[in-house]
Amino acid sequence: MTRPEDVRYLALALSLGRRGQGRTWPNPAVGCVIVKDGRILGRGWTQPGGRPHAERAALDQAGEDARGATAYVSLEPCAHHGRTPPCAEALVAAGVARVVAPIADIDPNVDGRGFSMLRDAGVEVTTGLLAEQALSDHAGFFFNRAQGRPLVTLKMALTLDGRIATATGESQWITGPAARREVHALRARHDAVMVGAGTARIDDPTLTVRDLGMDHQPVRVVVSRRLDLPLMGNLARTAKEVPVWICHGRDADPALVEAWQGLGARLFSCDLAGRQLDISSVLQELGAAGLTRVFCEGGGALAATLLAADLVDELIVMSAGMLLGAEGRPGIGALGVDRLAEAPRLTLVEMRALGSDVLTRWARPTAG
Amino acid sequence: MTRPEDVRYLALALSLGRRGQGRTWPNPAVGCVIVKDGRILGRGWTQPGGRPHAERAALDQAGEDARGATAYVSLEPCAHHGRTPPCAEALVAAGVARVVAPIADIDPNVDGRGFSMLRDAGVEVTTGLLAEQALSDHAGFFFNRAQGRPLVTLKMALTLDGRIATATGESQWITGPAARREVHALRARHDAVMVGAGTARIDDPTLTVRDLGMDHQPVRVVVSRRLDLPLMGNLARTAKEVPVWICHGRDADPALVEAWQGLGARLFSCDLAGRQLDISSVLQELGAAGLTRVFCEGGGALAATLLAADLVDELIVMSAGMLLGAEGRPGIGALGVDRLAEAPRLTLVEMRALGSDVLTRWARPTAG
Repeated sequence: MTRPEDVRYLALALSLGRRGQGRTWPNPAVGCVIVKDGRILGRGWTQPGGRPHAERAALDQAGEDARGATAYVSLEPCAHHGRTPPCAEALVAAGVARVVAPIADIDPNVDGRGFSMLRDAGVEVTTGLLAEQALSDHAGFFFNRAQGRPLVTLKMALTLDGRIATATGESQWITGPAARREVHALRARHDAVMVGAGTARIDDPTLTVRDLGMDHQPVRVVVSRRLDLPLMGNLARTAKEVPVWICHGRDADPALVEAWQGLGARLFSCDLAGRQLDISSVLQELGAAGLTRVFCEGGGALAATLLAADLVDELIVMSAGMLLGAEGRPGIGALGVDRLAEAPRLTLVEMRALGSDVLTRWARPTAG
Repeated sequence: MTRPEDVRYLALALSLGRRGQGRTWPNPAVGCVIVKDGRILGRGWTQPGGRPHAERAALDQAGEDARGATAYVSLEPCAHHGRTPPCAEALVAAGVARVVAPIADIDPNVDGRGFSMLRDAGVEVTTGLLAEQALSDHAGFFFNRAQGRPLVTLKMALTLDGRIATATGESQWITGPAARREVHALRARHDAVMVGAGTARIDDPTLTVRDLGMDHQPVRVVVSRRLDLPLMGNLARTAKEVPVWICHGRDADPALVEAWQGLGARLFSCDLAGRQLDISSVLQELGAAGLTRVFCEGGGALAATLLAADLVDELIVMSAGMLLGAEGRPGIGALGVDRLAEAPRLTLVEMRALGSDVLTRWARPTAG
């Protein structure tokens, strides 16, 4: 049964869980709060790399006081013996009287067994509260488990007429400092940042998280059928410090494969679909490698490929009060859409000002 | 001297004034409230066609009680004898003790003389309050008086990637019903709705205000160098009921000029700039004809011409959660911008959801 204070503590557990987003893959980013008699005895969230789990961290803080307490967890506690004993067992052993969690874990290793293990041991289990938020927070993990691919967030920084650069290629800067800072925060909340080969060649980006006081860096993924990327560029130069993963076609030049491996990159050989990389195969490879949340920053061709394949789960548009006209470079390449009825459609989730720019966030209309 | 209640009553006068927007041209849309001892004795706003003035309407409501009252007026009362005696004189004659108005009227017939006339008659005059709002409300009138052209609001209904139609021309509907209703409300607040010849030919629009329970219709302006518009279209068919004004080049076929005059259209012969109509000349003609607020609904070529000439004072973007890709029709034509530093820039004024779409409003960075 739900109690009045449950929403407050569970919302806290969810927000603690989100702290881990981008760094717990292949595990979900879970949060946990242990409460007794209106006092918070422990808080925890999944640590970088996925261990320790949130429940373990919170129980360690609470210590002996956990006996008779309520544990608020943002996802069903795990039930399988892996590198460590399962969290459901740990909660029982600590004497927790009640567990409040929004949703079950769809991982076949858990899938309700965590809740059963708790109930069998006499622990009261309450579920269903804040389920929508939990589904959204864990969407990347669930996509990986259910469809074998990570969640894909596509970001575009556009002029009001949908351009990302002048005809001559000048693109720095369309959006202002607040929007660029937001991009770094968004990178940090994803397991990987992904760009197409054209962007890697033209912009020579580093794709790292900067100026946020963070050690953690997302994996940098480049999608390049032919592996024809600059061997002296920023990504090549830093591949030994921050992971660079390259998804290429099976027909890529073996000498280039060897060169990039030598530079420290991890290579993924993917299927082709006609003359392009099969983007579905690319995402399946990234999912199998453990990624749950991928942040795609373009360019226009990769963005169009993802949209055309219905593989964009969330779209973030940063709009600058500027116009570049029809000769400017479009933010989205050709989609092959002839009729409005065929056009990819998204639903508004959020809008806010970002300095002098506007951020709008859009999601797939029906739950993925 | 300002009194505590002044902001409230003056804001009311301003909001009453805005009711007249779109129907008082060539006069400003003014509002007036007469207050004594905390009681509102009269409210008025400039009536369609510009007469009676707001002050006259409010004074008529207040009657004898106006003696000793304060009049809140959204613009300096007029001082010149025209079709009716000046409002400043009417306020004095009614025995009003105090007049609160945000700003002076820059019309050379007034320009401070209304305030002087009041002060000379012993009426206390307070100015400066809510001046920014008043400048914005009367911007169209001031543009007309100072620069000889109307204020120009450009509206674009775009996909997230800046498109207005598929490659095959399908454009109905990009935005949803709430956005389309907002377009009708915006049309009603402008003196005229303006489109380019391409839009008039392809969409065959009526450009009227519908479903708002209003009699008043804005003038419909088409910019067409060659006057090659459909003589059997919706605009031609309805030109005798709702004004159709066509701005054409001096080299347009005289037979077409005669045909359109026969249909009831008013024709404006404008200068050319190279092979196009000189858009500055077009707006000067519309300004001379009395228009103070023009609402441009495209298409892309006219929008680009206005932007390139720095003649867009306000831009309203309605963004739909849809993507059409690079092959879709761009909302803004070629601007001839090579460098980001040359790109037209605008400042965010407002953003809000409109059903499933997003409306953002942008203005020229410095006051026009």
